[in-house]
Amino acid sequence: MVNETQHTCSASSSSRSDGGSSSGSESSKDNSRCSTPVLDSDRHERLREKMRRRQDAGDKWFSLEFFPPRTANAAVNLISRFDRMGAGGPLFIDVTWHPAGDPGSDKETSSMIIANTAVNYCGLETILHMTCCNQTKDDITGHLQKAKRLGLKNIMALRGDPAGEEWEEEVDGFNYAVDLVKHIRNEFDDYFDICVAGYPKGHPEAESYEADLRHLKEKVSAGADFIITQLFFRSETFLKFMKDCQAIGITCPIIPGIFPIQGYHSLRQLVKLSKLEVPQEIKDVIEPIKDNDAAIRNYGVELAVSMCRELLDSGMVHGLHFYTLNREVATTEVLKRLGLWKEDPRRPLPWAVSAHPKRRVEDVRPIFWASRPKSYIYRTQEWDDFPNGRWGNSSSPAFGELKDYYLFYLKSKSPREELLKMWGEELTGEESVFEVFTCYITGEPNRNGYKVTCMPWNDDPLATETNLLKDQLEKVNRRGILTINSQPNINGKPSTDPIVGWGPSGGYVFQKAYLEFFTSSEIVTALLKVLKKYELRVNYHIVNVKGQNITNAPDLQPNAVTWGIFPGREIIQPTVVDPVSFLSWKDEAFALWIEQWAKLYEEESPSRMIIQYIHDNYYLVNLVDNDFPLENCLWQVVEDTFELLN
Amino acid sequence: MVNETQHTCSASSSSRSDGGSSSGSESSKDNSRCSTPVLDSDRHERLREKMRRRQDAGDKWFSLEFFPPRTANAAVNLISRFDRMGAGGPLFIDVTWHPAGDPGSDKETSSMIIANTAVNYCGLETILHMTCCNQTKDDITGHLQKAKRLGLKNIMALRGDPAGEEWEEEVDGFNYAVDLVKHIRNEFDDYFDICVAGYPKGHPEAESYEADLRHLKEKVSAGADFIITQLFFRSETFLKFMKDCQAIGITCPIIPGIFPIQGYHSLRQLVKLSKLEVPQEIKDVIEPIKDNDAAIRNYGVELAVSMCRELLDSGMVHGLHFYTLNREVATTEVLKRLGLWKEDPRRPLPWAVSAHPKRRVEDVRPIFWASRPKSYIYRTQEWDDFPNGRWGNSSSPAFGELKDYYLFYLKSKSPREELLKMWGEELTGEESVFEVFTCYITGEPNRNGYKVTCMPWNDDPLATETNLLKDQLEKVNRRGILTINSQPNINGKPSTDPIVGWGPSGGYVFQKAYLEFFTSSEIVTALLKVLKKYELRVNYHIVNVKGQNITNAPDLQPNAVTWGIFPGREIIQPTVVDPVSFLSWKDEAFALWIEQWAKLYEEESPSRMIIQYIHDNYYLVNLVDNDFPLENCLWQVVEDTFELLN
Repeated sequence: MVNETQHTCSASSSSRSDGGSSSGSESSKDNSRCSTPVLDSDRHERLREKMRRRQDAGDKWFSLEFFPPRTANAAVNLISRFDRMGAGGPLFIDVTWHPAGDPGSDKETSSMIIANTAVNYCGLETILHMTCCNQTKDDITGHLQKAKRLGLKNIMALRGDPAGEEWEEEVDGFNYAVDLVKHIRNEFDDYFDICVAGYPKGHPEAESYEADLRHLKEKVSAGADFIITQLFFRSETFLKFMKDCQAIGITCPIIPGIFPIQGYHSLRQLVKLSKLEVPQEIKDVIEPIKDNDAAIRNYGVELAVSMCRELLDSGMVHGLHFYTLNREVATTEVLKRLGLWKEDPRRPLPWAVSAHPKRRVEDVRPIFWASRPKSYIYRTQEWDDFPNGRWGNSSSPAFGELKDYYLFYLKSKSPREELLKMWGEELTGEESVFEVFTCYITGEPNRNGYKVTCMPWNDDPLATETNLLKDQLEKVNRRGILTINSQPNINGKPSTDPIVGWGPSGGYVFQKAYLEFFTSSEIVTALLKVLKKYELRVNYHIVNVKGQNITNAPDLQPNAVTWGIFPGREIIQPTVVDPVSFLSWKDEAFALWIEQWAKLYEEESPSRMIIQYIHDNYYLVNLVDNDFPLENCLWQVVEDTFELLN
Repeated sequence: MVNETQHTCSASSSSRSDGGSSSGSESSKDNSRCSTPVLDSDRHERLREKMRRRQDAGDKWFSLEFFPPRTANAAVNLISRFDRMGAGGPLFIDVTWHPAGDPGSDKETSSMIIANTAVNYCGLETILHMTCCNQTKDDITGHLQKAKRLGLKNIMALRGDPAGEEWEEEVDGFNYAVDLVKHIRNEFDDYFDICVAGYPKGHPEAESYEADLRHLKEKVSAGADFIITQLFFRSETFLKFMKDCQAIGITCPIIPGIFPIQGYHSLRQLVKLSKLEVPQEIKDVIEPIKDNDAAIRNYGVELAVSMCRELLDSGMVHGLHFYTLNREVATTEVLKRLGLWKEDPRRPLPWAVSAHPKRRVEDVRPIFWASRPKSYIYRTQEWDDFPNGRWGNSSSPAFGELKDYYLFYLKSKSPREELLKMWGEELTGEESVFEVFTCYITGEPNRNGYKVTCMPWNDDPLATETNLLKDQLEKVNRRGILTINSQPNINGKPSTDPIVGWGPSGGYVFQKAYLEFFTSSEIVTALLKVLKKYELRVNYHIVNVKGQNITNAPDLQPNAVTWGIFPGREIIQPTVVDPVSFLSWKDEAFALWIEQWAKLYEEESPSRMIIQYIHDNYYLVNLVDNDFPLENCLWQVVEDTFELLN
């Protein structure tokens, strides 16, 4: 398999040179292509069932292979890539096992934790690779137990490279992948879906091609559910291999491994490690252009597209597995040209569901974490039950501790220097902060010429939907209503609406207008007077960092602010404003001022003290306009407040 | 208390002379004035808390006392009366305990079962009376346990009449009501709210008025929560009593018992049994008109209204308790004139919630039982969990056996002869059946001049809402689409809409158009062809008595067909079309043909065979138009079907 060789490429792919370019155009919540259990029968199926269903429906699919990164920064980048490439609709992704990298540990770069992140935080169906040679039974069982605990449901069972040249079979040890397959089935019964590797040219160490086929059949007989092949350079290689497999009675799905050539050196190293031979006709093209990366990549894409077309046209291939080498451009290009990249411009839900089997029923969340879905998943990871349909079902759930900003997958994508350029090297007063918020909303450069593309509460530029409110948001931010979350009201737009639609077609989506912001106590005093006039129409929650809490919510009940009506379904209400969890969110929202912003500056510096002052004295406010069929009154509320202040 | 005497009047009140007249104007589902747990914080409160809250809010209330009926027919009438009088908004009703009538038994006329019906089937907060003298501790504990099991939460603790003249106190026995109060608190802690009786003139057997006050104080000290008084004839009597109670330290609520004089003989008997003296000024009015029932009742209403006004005006009285003698007219008239009768023209929900504490969270039901809510409650009485918000939460719930038509409270209100007049003494073919359905819809007399005011699937005339569909329904019933349930589509009408509104004000209600009918296999064949054209828009379930089942519902998921959006709340979706429970409903719907209609005729008679033929060969169909913002397409579907048949 490629996994043994991929690490040789990790240095280049951990840079953002080939993948970062498209990241600025969408908000992260639009990217993960997951759906709710209620909307999508997929979610209840295991991977092998999904594969079968897609095959029966004649529906072609693809999958993506990644390897674990070397550094925490590379991990942050890889996770963004999961989100972006997840948007194209892979059937699954897989994460290779790097024995030298402490793959089962809790390190942020370990195979285990990367796979965990893909499943739980990016909502992707994920296969974790696992190798067995030179490992004890207890180690392996431990890894498998941990994988199960983290919500992983699929294992790619591999032998791995023996340590050293003079490897010998151990008696009763794990000598071959088949031993691992047997072990998984013995110890975990049918819990995991198991994948094994096939070698279209025969494994380089096998006695013969035929012997290798027999080994493959043993792995399948031992309990493997499907096969992914080593890369190859000609479609005939795979098609012959597939027929040979069928001839000896292998009936499970066999998925061709596709390797789009992306560069001269990576190809050389790969070939060396995999002991494959590059056909002369390919060498002939590549050698003359070996110093022109772009040319090689274009050729690689061309080659991959035509080989994939041959495979799909053969009628024998239903899915394609891509060795991405953690790069985005070439694979995405191939998939788009094949028509397999199925990005849905609509949100499947206002938020992406985790793929953890425990969270299967989750279909409602507080709106507060809309821009921080990974933080929400982290803080609710200990919940035994997730609310199904009604938030009230989950009685006063306890949110996890507030230390998430130390977690690598919640770190800002931007380094400190970049943040300082966006948020100000030096702040001169609260007004400088108002300016940062305003620039984030308008998309215009700040006074030093830098665009503000993220905020502590939102790692991505404004969502398309929020753009609908841009003019009003700009106006209020300039005057110290520092907005961090908002949505317009929607009265029954089709679920296929390109901006506000979500869920399957044929439905209608609705929203109550929502506005959440930090503001000074002076503005809060005026606001409260104004809100008296709107008592029956607007629900509000106003809280400061000490927990002083003012609300008119009846009986601390949640208020549904997003819902959808679909053919043949119950009502889906994916987001609520919940008074109880708002207090957990409040801690997080206030802490972000300090952790992400104040700490950019020296202790005791004026800039830091300005942020600290805001943290200590401002209020966090949310407003809901219950009268969704009428024009949003929240702007009027804010305007009335400013008027009262004048 | 009055309870010992009321049975003397039951003969007259079990006739429908004074209560039946108003029953024809509304459908039963509009009558019970209950609300969902989600919509109404009331539901979670116990009676004493509700009383306190109403008092604190300065909100006057009333309650109604009934006695158990003597015959099953009288029980059926009493239950209709519960529904009708429940619509006026009593804080509670109470059911007296008749020691001679086997009050704790499972007989349909026992105090226990009548109270059970009031709580569970009519959704009324209910107090069950219980007397203790001449009973063993075990008997009493048994009664209390049974009451608790049935969902009763309030007990009126009384001594009851000693058997025979030579009654003596039993050592360690239950000699006084206070013994029963102590026993309830000892054995059931704080589970029950306890009410005791107060005697404004002193108990006839008490040594003195003062001694009786001391006895009352003992009952309160032993754990009683409030007091209801014996009837009296002058407001001063009650107000003096109340002051005397307060003077000796009784601080709990004291509710005056009001007895509107309804007839000469009932007054005489009551007075004899209660040993009260009728004031001379009342006797002076009544004696001359003693043979004029109407005149006496008018006088009684007048007298009660002016006494109640005095009581309420005193500022000491917050609620009034009415001894109804199981009659409707006088008490309703008094309440309306006092402005206490608070009938809400809107439905609080599309169906009435049972007041059983176990069913507190119930807020969604299949639409099929919309006209048979009592049958639904009966068939789901064994459920441990009721769905909260989402029907899917209750995983494949088991519906109880189909023997409900034997239950007295599900019997048709009309006797056999009346049903024959409505549904035909003799049927000549399927067309005669079409005619019956059509007459029920139009409200016009049948060929023999009788109006069809009920059907086996609906004990009441058409609901106001269904009237919106009258013309279309008439057309299709004439042609053999025999409708039994339907609702128009609604796209966000205010919750205060007089016809389709429900729930608190400030909300919006929605519906998908729904149509349910029996029809021949010939029509079903054509319908299925037509439905292909509407595949994405219309969901259908088509089933015959043998269970042959045709549907396009995705994954057997329920379809929400009624929902409401309210300020500061989660979405409420009170009715769904659920494919699984439809099969339980199907059994019931088909069985009603035989049990309620076919069995009116002699075995082997042509009429009976016609109904049997329909039962054996027709299909039960339901259709949902998912596109609620557009014009209802179901009529077009039916029209297309008829066109295809021509």
